[in-house]
Amino acid sequence: MERRTAIIVGVGAEAGLGAALARRFAREGLHIVVVGRSADRLAKVVAGLPGTGEAHVADATSEGDIIDLFAAQPSPELVVFNAGQNVRAPIRDLDAETFETAWRINTFAGFLVGREAARAMVPRGAGTILFTGASASLRGRPGFAAFAAAKAGLRAITQSMARELGPQGIHVAHVVIDGGIAGERLRSRAPERVAAAGEDGLLDLDAIAEAYAQLHLQHRSAWTQELDLRPFKESF
Amino acid sequence: MERRTAIIVGVGAEAGLGAALARRFAREGLHIVVVGRSADRLAKVVAGLPGTGEAHVADATSEGDIIDLFAAQPSPELVVFNAGQNVRAPIRDLDAETFETAWRINTFAGFLVGREAARAMVPRGAGTILFTGASASLRGRPGFAAFAAAKAGLRAITQSMARELGPQGIHVAHVVIDGGIAGERLRSRAPERVAAAGEDGLLDLDAIAEAYAQLHLQHRSAWTQELDLRPFKESF
Amino acid sequence: MERRTAIIVGVGAEAGLGAALARRFAREGLHIVVVGRSADRLAKVVAGLPGTGEAHVADATSEGDIIDLFAAQPSPELVVFNAGQNVRAPIRDLDAETFETAWRINTFAGFLVGREAARAMVPRGAGTILFTGASASLRGRPGFAAFAAAKAGLRAITQSMARELGPQGIHVAHVVIDGGIAGERLRSRAPERVAAAGEDGLLDLDAIAEAYAQLHLQHRSAWTQELDLRPFKESF
Amino acid sequence: MERRTAIIVGVGAEAGLGAALARRFAREGLHIVVVGRSADRLAKVVAGLPGTGEAHVADATSEGDIIDLFAAQPSPELVVFNAGQNVRAPIRDLDAETFETAWRINTFAGFLVGREAARAMVPRGAGTILFTGASASLRGRPGFAAFAAAKAGLRAITQSMARELGPQGIHVAHVVIDGGIAGERLRSRAPERVAAAGEDGLLDLDAIAEAYAQLHLQHRSAWTQELDLRPFKESF
Repeated sequence: MERRTAIIVGVGAEAGLGAALARRFAREGLHIVVVGRSADRLAKVVAGLPGTGEAHVADATSEGDIIDLFAAQPSPELVVFNAGQNVRAPIRDLDAETFETAWRINTFAGFLVGREAARAMVPRGAGTILFTGASASLRGRPGFAAFAAAKAGLRAITQSMARELGPQGIHVAHVVIDGGIAGERLRSRAPERVAAAGEDGLLDLDAIAEAYAQLHLQHRSAWTQELDLRPFKESF
Repeated sequence: MERRTAIIVGVGAEAGLGAALARRFAREGLHIVVVGRSADRLAKVVAGLPGTGEAHVADATSEGDIIDLFAAQPSPELVVFNAGQNVRAPIRDLDAETFETAWRINTFAGFLVGREAARAMVPRGAGTILFTGASASLRGRPGFAAFAAAKAGLRAITQSMARELGPQGIHVAHVVIDGGIAGERLRSRAPERVAAAGEDGLLDLDAIAEAYAQLHLQHRSAWTQELDLRPFKESF
Repeated sequence: MERRTAIIVGVGAEAGLGAALARRFAREGLHIVVVGRSADRLAKVVAGLPGTGEAHVADATSEGDIIDLFAAQPSPELVVFNAGQNVRAPIRDLDAETFETAWRINTFAGFLVGREAARAMVPRGAGTILFTGASASLRGRPGFAAFAAAKAGLRAITQSMARELGPQGIHVAHVVIDGGIAGERLRSRAPERVAAAGEDGLLDLDAIAEAYAQLHLQHRSAWTQELDLRPFKESF
Repeated sequence: MERRTAIIVGVGAEAGLGAALARRFAREGLHIVVVGRSADRLAKVVAGLPGTGEAHVADATSEGDIIDLFAAQPSPELVVFNAGQNVRAPIRDLDAETFETAWRINTFAGFLVGREAARAMVPRGAGTILFTGASASLRGRPGFAAFAAAKAGLRAITQSMARELGPQGIHVAHVVIDGGIAGERLRSRAPERVAAAGEDGLLDLDAIAEAYAQLHLQHRSAWTQELDLRPFKESF
């Protein structure tokens, strides 16, 4: 019997969303392939999995790396694209390289992972592909031209893919995370924001992961294409 | 210890969404109050519950009936507004009474149930209120002026309530059901559509109910306001 | 040769949007029928028109009144539905009558006017029907359940009508006015807001009317269905 | 007295939208700078202008070219970004280069032009920046992952810029062109589609240009951020 596999692209710190997703899907009985740029960080995440898993070092913006990834893991049941990087600058101060990098990490990498996942899944007529979005996926605010353009681009890819691949049995969904995530990144970069948020004022990692898991578990007669997630006290 | 209660408004046939929701939440250990216009139909649903439940006959468009309902059930943990009625006519043929009735059933009743649920839950600082929407909630198509107006109105209520009540601990969510439901109504009214849909081409009742259940189970640090559900092969 | 006529429903003060629309379309050479509840106010608006016009007293929420209006004016080239009334209350304090009145003025009246306009225009295969919307048409905010539900309902009607009537030669458009209008209503009710807005910080009546005029003047090969208007400094 | 100047980026055939925009704004008394890759085509457009104008050869995807353009034209009153290129392929057949090129032409070039326009206009506290969008700007359909991602990205840029620059006196608007344009491109590539469209079934070039002109003429108390344009018989 074939091993059921999940590929999670965009795994960094143990207290990050990628790692939380890996742990949640391991609990579902899936063999987990965690993908990120740091072998050290990936090893720690694999070591903490409640099930089997392995690390795969790759740069999600590299077509070669992503093709190699799916060559090594040709039959995933689930693929999550969770890479992403925020950037903020007034439009007049936004340099071209920053704009391009935001696209490369948030949009282009998502396209590469999504396309390879589609190539792997369509012949089997089944599979789930999940993408991590943000409030910037839905609208551009002052100072967010680069990030909003990149995230809106990613969202459009997921819509195209959902409409194209749904009838072929592939579930494509986009999760709009609207609020701060209670993970290592925010704790190290914006401790004052963490303190101000109060109890449950930031998105809990396991709570987010649970929502991804439920998307994967949906029956194909009732699939969700887009889901928003935010803390109860978040203004929106 | 207080009994945990769910109120499901808009329960008809055993093979309908209201009844499926009642069964799903009964499995969650909630005492179920099924609300509808037909005592006979409600009794059958209660009899089939995998847990405790009771019937409450009410017209959801009657303010008195809904106030009485919440007087009888003052502390619900969960309230679902699932009443609704589709109507289709070219704009020039749409009579005022039909337009008003569509609003009364789809919008006004939703307001009454939502308001009473809010009144019951805010003092406790907790609770979930779920609303059933449709693709017409998002856009008006030819022939759907009455239904789209009514459903878009309901959706706007849920947005207002979510933004107002979220910070007070109440989870308000709207489910956009985009496609035909594999229930008694469609089977009796449009058997040819059921036949054409093919396997899993209509939304399975239990699959929809599971999505509602997962909304209720969400941690308050990661709440969803709107969820779409459609069959894998649905064009959208 | 037939007289070209515009019907403007929702005309009150001379320094209000309805009156500004009447003046702008009079300048386009149209005979103007201003419709509102106050004969005195209508008379003043007619007296100030730069062209021909007449007053027609009617309650836009009365089907009989609206049918009578179109019996008297059977061949309008343009119909504007500009009636509307804001209301704000926390959901728990919102009484059923207030909720229904908001619907009756903002949604039901719009349906009546839109339907009668469609009945008048379809046989001729030409005409324009414009509707006044608000930011609440697009999303529900705290305290705006009644107004947002009513305005979202109106917007859905315009979408249905546009998709149904466009191919029959009728241009249906919805204008989202996002911000305070520099008219008599705001000046008398919220003078502090007017003072705080600064130069051009509120929507100028003639500027809004110009946008409506341009919608009417659009060539049928390039019609707009929805237009947003807001002051340059408005946050959105 | 300073000469009033408009820069139109994305000008090709005389029977294309860029050229139509150039002619329309020349009629407004603006000196027109047409920007495109073909000196020959630009020369023909300049020759046909009903006013003064000049050609500026540039590749809109080149940062150097766009910086040079604004160095030569430092004080535009109006800038239009009209470059764009459609592409269609199933997700599995979409190669990385095609995906990147779509982004470079539709999104990155729009960012470069928008940023340089902002840099030129903000110090003066006035100006208009218009962007050409498409139905793919709003949603991703099957086969349109690359184009929808690119156009949705451009739209997000315009939203960010509008919210950031509006209060600084700069009008930023996005035009969603939903339907086929009655220009040279469609006539040469899809003559059967042109034939099938019937009278006014494609967007007339001058009709589109008029809508852009009206956006530029809007009073700053009532600015539009997004406008849709489609033929009266278009399904949407």
